[in-house]
Parts: sequence; structure tokens; C-alpha cells
Amino acid sequence: MSRLKEFKPIFYPRSMAVIGASGSASFKFGSMFLASLKGFGFKGEIYPVHPKADMILELKAYSNVRNIPSEVDFASISVPADIVPSVLEDCVEKGIKAVEIFTAGFSETGEEKKAELEKRIRTIAKESGIRVIGPNCFGVYCPASGLTLLPGYDFPKESGPVAFIGQSGGYAVNFCAEGKGMGLRFSKVVSYGNACDLNEVDFLKYLAEDPETEIITAYIEGVRDGRGFFQALKEITRVKPVIIWKVGFTEAGSRAVSSHTSSLAGEESIWDAVFSQTGAVRVNGMEELIDTTVAFLHLPGNIGTGISVVGGGGGIGAAGADAYEKAGFDLPPFKPKTQDRLRRLYQPAGTGIKNPLDTGAPIPPSRECLEAIAEDPGIDILVLYQFINFIAAGGSPEAMRETIAMQAGIKETYGKPIIAVLRPTPADVESLDAEQLWRKAKDMYLKADIPVYLSLERSAKALSKLRRYQRCLDETKTKI
Amino acid sequence: MSRLKEFKPIFYPRSMAVIGASGSASFKFGSMFLASLKGFGFKGEIYPVHPKADMILELKAYSNVRNIPSEVDFASISVPADIVPSVLEDCVEKGIKAVEIFTAGFSETGEEKKAELEKRIRTIAKESGIRVIGPNCFGVYCPASGLTLLPGYDFPKESGPVAFIGQSGGYAVNFCAEGKGMGLRFSKVVSYGNACDLNEVDFLKYLAEDPETEIITAYIEGVRDGRGFFQALKEITRVKPVIIWKVGFTEAGSRAVSSHTSSLAGEESIWDAVFSQTGAVRVNGMEELIDTTVAFLHLPGNIGTGISVVGGGGGIGAAGADAYEKAGFDLPPFKPKTQDRLRRLYQPAGTGIKNPLDTGAPIPPSRECLEAIAEDPGIDILVLYQFINFIAAGGSPEAMRETIAMQAGIKETYGKPIIAVLRPTPADVESLDAEQLWRKAKDMYLKADIPVYLSLERSAKALSKLRRYQRCLDETKTKI
Repeated sequence: MSRLKEFKPIFYPRSMAVIGASGSASFKFGSMFLASLKGFGFKGEIYPVHPKADMILELKAYSNVRNIPSEVDFASISVPADIVPSVLEDCVEKGIKAVEIFTAGFSETGEEKKAELEKRIRTIAKESGIRVIGPNCFGVYCPASGLTLLPGYDFPKESGPVAFIGQSGGYAVNFCAEGKGMGLRFSKVVSYGNACDLNEVDFLKYLAEDPETEIITAYIEGVRDGRGFFQALKEITRVKPVIIWKVGFTEAGSRAVSSHTSSLAGEESIWDAVFSQTGAVRVNGMEELIDTTVAFLHLPGNIGTGISVVGGGGGIGAAGADAYEKAGFDLPPFKPKTQDRLRRLYQPAGTGIKNPLDTGAPIPPSRECLEAIAEDPGIDILVLYQFINFIAAGGSPEAMRETIAMQAGIKETYGKPIIAVLRPTPADVESLDAEQLWRKAKDMYLKADIPVYLSLERSAKALSKLRRYQRCLDETKTKI
Repeated sequence: MSRLKEFKPIFYPRSMAVIGASGSASFKFGSMFLASLKGFGFKGEIYPVHPKADMILELKAYSNVRNIPSEVDFASISVPADIVPSVLEDCVEKGIKAVEIFTAGFSETGEEKKAELEKRIRTIAKESGIRVIGPNCFGVYCPASGLTLLPGYDFPKESGPVAFIGQSGGYAVNFCAEGKGMGLRFSKVVSYGNACDLNEVDFLKYLAEDPETEIITAYIEGVRDGRGFFQALKEITRVKPVIIWKVGFTEAGSRAVSSHTSSLAGEESIWDAVFSQTGAVRVNGMEELIDTTVAFLHLPGNIGTGISVVGGGGGIGAAGADAYEKAGFDLPPFKPKTQDRLRRLYQPAGTGIKNPLDTGAPIPPSRECLEAIAEDPGIDILVLYQFINFIAAGGSPEAMRETIAMQAGIKETYGKPIIAVLRPTPADVESLDAEQLWRKAKDMYLKADIPVYLSLERSAKALSKLRRYQRCLDETKTKI
């Protein structure tokens, strides 16, 4: 069976049983999930399952999944841990193809009796062929089918090219919420917890084939099958980028992943080798994960190394040059012709026209300035360091739109990427108007495929990760 | 003459001449500065100087500084570069003790004729004893006397313990604006540009003595007197922390600092030695500079190494443990008694109670939970990873106030620092209400001397810099 077909009931279920929904106690996972699913707008049939209820959230409820009269593709399970195996057996009997088990309290507790329960789940899965996500997870989010995570009622309803898999439910939620703010939209998101049946390798292989997914991101605590993981990464990174945030390298970090998802974190040196030998992209922390994904999403296939940093202030250029050169890029001096053109635009006093370009004042660079730089054959990428109050000329959304449209036009005309470093607004309560403008400008930039970063350092880091991946791809192609 | 007395006309002038104020063209530096000074509320007399004007911004103007009938302590100069020397001679004749020269276009242009002008300024200063800040700078900000930078009319009017010196005017402005948002208040801020007379060593020595200043921060492109700088740092860091952001280490970075402030950036290996041998605190970028200053400002003299990371989600603990252990801290397992108490508070399923503490859900930890941890003898610092929508219980400022007050109470009762990692709000325009709450919560935390960070990684980095400084201090004391 092809992997796309095998995973269809998971990502595109036509009907879904929500086992353990009570409707009464809203803090119970089952009820929370039922509300999420309804609120988000699941497109198929929903069957709440609870031993005593008749109707839950205006849906007819069933006392056992076996009593549902119609076919059921997928089920979520949030019942006490010790009855999960028997509920799973009911699901098998009903002919359900896959389940997500939200319930926690299995091998991650470190208690033998509870680890035993997880073993039973795994055995049932192996013997019956039912596929299990979890336990101890938040499940699956797939906007195309209206399926969402346990607490994901307010996630974006439109699909996008970014997939995420992670053992942590919390980080899956944060990635969706914070990533959405930076313009990310998602194909599939999976929180898979203890990975007692389906694990990272299964999901990675599926996402590699999934036509909706262009960029794969992952938060990983430990892997069950190191060799399989390594081999899968090696193959998949040739097709799609895989951006991985791996944790658990220190003593306490490793203790934490063990008590969280019962994972073996693994030695850092082994992971160093995995990253250096597979082309997988290594990131550290949620910011880097999102920053890097933004770069992969909006920048073209081969970004080049010639950077120009443009800003109103000499310190910007100095710090930008340091950041980009340390990240493996070059800031070649502008060609004499470019310098001549820039000299006509900027008075020599208090400016610098060699690259970095210091325009002397924090107002955005003019069209003539950007044209001169974009026409310089040594420059591949224009990094613009800007402040929202100057882009918006003291608060004018119209001026902001014009400035960004002009910059986007330069990018299109010359086919050279622009990176917008848009400094954060001061965190005063009084600066909320500026923050609103910042967020609108950010949206305009992203819409024009111009990545937005809060600092030169973060932009340089994200671009270096994209560049490294592109170099790995080139090397692989050369070998073939 | 004592340094405090010598620098008094610079930081506490009773009267000030603004030379080159025209009042007509608002983009001219002189007029901009005059407006800043008036708007900010300079406490002394202001004398605009312009060859043709009678009145500027409702102040009587003079055609030459020599014609001012009263005594003048300090002057700003923003006239064309080639007449700066003669204007400076006028200042000497008038008996002015110090000037700040905003005009650019001297040695940083790389042109011999212009470098010659700067040499003349230096010679006049040396021979007459008048002190010069700049040229090519934004000057001095000192809220206590109502003196502000060239574009600093909206800076905080109240003083605080943080000083900043920097060759870049832009970064001086940004540090004040962004730092203010994170609760920083300033004693003295100096943008000193080309440093043709007064340089970083002079200002560092002054700030070391200045009773208003507790923390010295700096942005440095290059130093004029390496040996003097090294010696000064060594002495000053015993008295006050000096946090330095140094740029210009790469080829283009070094080119940028040369064209910006005519500085020699210096080899990175030499700077490595400076930092390792003096106790000066090294940071990279504006975020790190502010993050680190926040740690120095709000944390006590000896912070200890035992960290507990508390959050609702196992991934948080794993990432937090990695970040803090890699930064040189420990996450010791909680004592059995602590674990017993936490076990009673948190169901075992889906939580981890060994340190890091995974509370299972993103709601803030209860008083009982924090008390249990604060009473654990192995724990010195509590790092709380939180989301604003849960601190504020879905949008209630009252709930937010109560939560933060409770946490501040724990810190006070047990004398153990709390670090608030308060995740950024998603950058959607729709999340501005959450952003407003975030900013209010941030203010409440800072008021309670609880540092606020946007991520675990950034908090760990800032604390590691404070810890390193404290260890250096201890070693110095042991030697004595």
C-alpha cells in the first residue's frame, strides 16, 4: 500500500470518533478536543463516544465505538490510561484504521506497570494493523480536512506548504500560533508523543511524498530507530528541506525528555554527525525554527553569497557585516560605478558608500539607491535595516505601503532577494500603535516574498542555514 | 582636577550654546538639536548661534558665540566641517569648557584634507584645554540636567543607573528607545563618534566615578589607546560591570567602522584576550546588550548555579535544561521531599516532577508549587516559562496582577530570584490585545525586580554573562 493511501485515514478522515468526550467537564481532553474539532470545522462526521451520554455538544453520542452505525476512519482516544488498550481493541473491531491517543501516563512515567500498558498498545497495533499516534500527544492538524490538534480550534483554516512533526504537543501548538504570526501556513502538523507505533521516520517518509508539503520542520527529543532515521533523512533532504530542532543533550535535558516522552535523547556527537552527513538543517529554539522556515519559504533556490547591508547609521553596517561574514557570506565592496551613483545620492559626510551602505539617516533608501545596488554584479541579496516609524514616515500606512511596494518592485525587476530587518518596536505600552504598523508592514513584506527579521544577527543565521542546505543539495547533485 | 569636576560642564551644563541652529530648515542638525533640547526640557540657559537669525524657536539668537553676554558652559556645534575649527576657536575665546561636534565629514571620509581638519580640532583642544566630544556624533544625554542627544526629545526624563557610551549615534538612540521599553533608565549616554579628543577611556573612567551610574554599557568600533583601554577596564570592572558590544571583526565590518568613525577595529584574538583578562562582559547585538543589562539590573550579587525550569509542557523543560546547562548552570534533581510535594500537586500522567518541572498544562504554577521548589536547598533560581494568555487567564488584568504579585512574593520570602520567560505574542495584527497585556505584565515583573525574557535561550545567555562577571569579581577579591 502506498504511504499516501495508508495515511489517508489519519490526515483526511471522512469520519471520526471522539472517544472519551463527556461534554460536562470542559478541562477533560476528550471534551476539549470535541470542542476544538467542531469549532475548527471538521468536514466529516463526528461521533462522540462516552459510556453514559446521549448527546454531547449537539451531537449524538455512543456508549461504545462499536455501536456507531456508520464507517469510522479515525478516532481520538482520551480515556484513563488503564482502559486505553481495551478501547483500542474496540476500535480494531470497529474497523477503524488509525487512532490518536491523547492520554498520558505510560512509559514516560518510568513505572513498569504503565510501560506495560504502552507495550500492549504497541502489540495490538502490530497484530491488527491499526496505526497509533501517541500516546501522550496532541494528535494531528490538517486544515485541508478540518482536523485539528487537541487545543487547536483557532488555527489557520487555510492550508500552506509547511509541515511540522514533534514529540511535544505544546511546541506543536506554539509553532502553529507563533508561526502563523510570521505568515506560516501548514499542510500537516503532528504531535506524536511517545511514538509507540508511528514515529518520526513514518511521518517524515509520508511528508516527503505528500504533495501539499514543501518544507518539513521537526522538534525531536529522541528517535526510536537511529539507523532508519538517518537513512530516511539522507533521502528526504534531497527532495525537501528538513529543519530539525533537537533537544536533550545535557544531563537534565536528557532526564527531561525521558520523563516527557520516554525518549532516549542520544549523544550530541552522534547528532552532530547526523546533521553534517544528511543535509538536515539544524536549529536551536522556536525563534530559529520559525526564522529559518521563513527563509526557506520566501527565498529562491540558490541565494548566492554577495550581501549588501543598507541602513541609516554606520553601526548597522559594521554589525551587519560582522553577522553576515561570520555566517559565511561576503560583503564585496561595491563596483566603482555603483559607488559613483551612490555618491551622487548621499553626501559624503556621515555616510559610507562602499558596502555596507550607510545612508546617514534612518529614512528608507530611495528607489535610485536600491537600483544602483541591485545592478551591482557583486551583489546577490539586499539586506535592508529599517525602523517602522521611518518606513511609515511617522505613522502613515500609505507611505508604508508605497515604500514596501517600491522595494518589492526592485526585488522583482532585478531578481535579487531583499531581506527586511525590521527592528522591534520598543516594548512600552505607549508604542502599541507602532507595533500595529510593524505587524502590518511585516504582513506586506511577507506577501511580497520578502522575509522579515527582528535583527541582523537573526537574519544572517536564518540565511546561512538556507545557504548550507542549498550547498548540500548541489553537492549531492554533483555526485549523481 | 577631579574627573567629576572636569566633566561637570559636559553632563551638567548650566548654560549651552547651540551653534548652527537656523530654525528654518528642520532637517539641519542644529535646528533638530535645538528642538530636542527645548522639547526635552533642558534646565539651563540656551543660546542659539547663527550668523543671520535674531530669534530662533522663541529664543534670542547670537551671530557668534563670542557675543553671548553671559557665561556658557557647553556648546553643540553643527556647522559645515571646514569652519568647525574656527568656531571651536571662538568657543575657546568665549571660555566654553567643552563642546560636542555633531558635524560629520572628517577623518572617516578617508580624505586627507578632511582628516587634516580633524587634526586641527584635536590641536586646538590640546592647546587650549577645551574638551571635545565627536566630531561625527549625537552627543550627550543626561536626564538629570535635561540634556539630550541630537534626536532625543522623547527620551525618559527620569534618571536611572544605566550608562551607555558608543561611537554610533544611531545605536545610542536605539539603546535608549528599546532599553526604555525593557525598563532601563539612564544616568548618562554618550555618542562620541570619531573620538578626536575625549574617547572611551575618558568616559569609562568618568562613569566609574559617577555616583549616578551602576552599570556601564558600551558599543565600540575601535579604541584609540589599546593599552590605556585595557588597563582602565581591568580597574573599572572591579567597581562596576562594563558590558561591551564590539563590532568590526570581519573584513567588511572593519571597512565599515573605518568609514563610520575612522576607527581601527583590531584583531578578534586581541579582543578575546581583553574580555578574558579584564572581567568586561562581552555581548553581541542590541538584544544581547539589553537582555544582559536587564539581568545585571534586577538580579542580586551572587546568583548561584542551581536552576529550576518550570513550565507547562515537557518540551519546555528539555529545551530549558539544555539552554541552562550549556550556559554553565545546573539543574539538580529536586530533593525527594520536594518531589513528594510536587507529586501531590501534579498527577503523574503527562507531567514531570524531577526538575525541570512539567506542570502538564500551560497555566501558571500555583503558590504551593513555587513554595515547594523555593524551599529545595539545591535550587537557587526559578525560571518560569509562561504565556501571557494563561497568566492573564484569557484576558483578565486582575488575574495577571495576582499571579505576578504571588510570584514576586515567593521571590521575596525565599530570597531566590525568579526569571520570567514570557513568550512573545504571535505577530498577528489580531493579537495586539495580547501584546498590550504582555507589555503590562512585563512592566509588573520588572517593577518587582523579576527580569523578563522572550525565550529560554536568551534568558540563559543573559544569566550566564552575569554569573561570569560575578565569578571574575570573586577571583579578583580572592587575589587581594
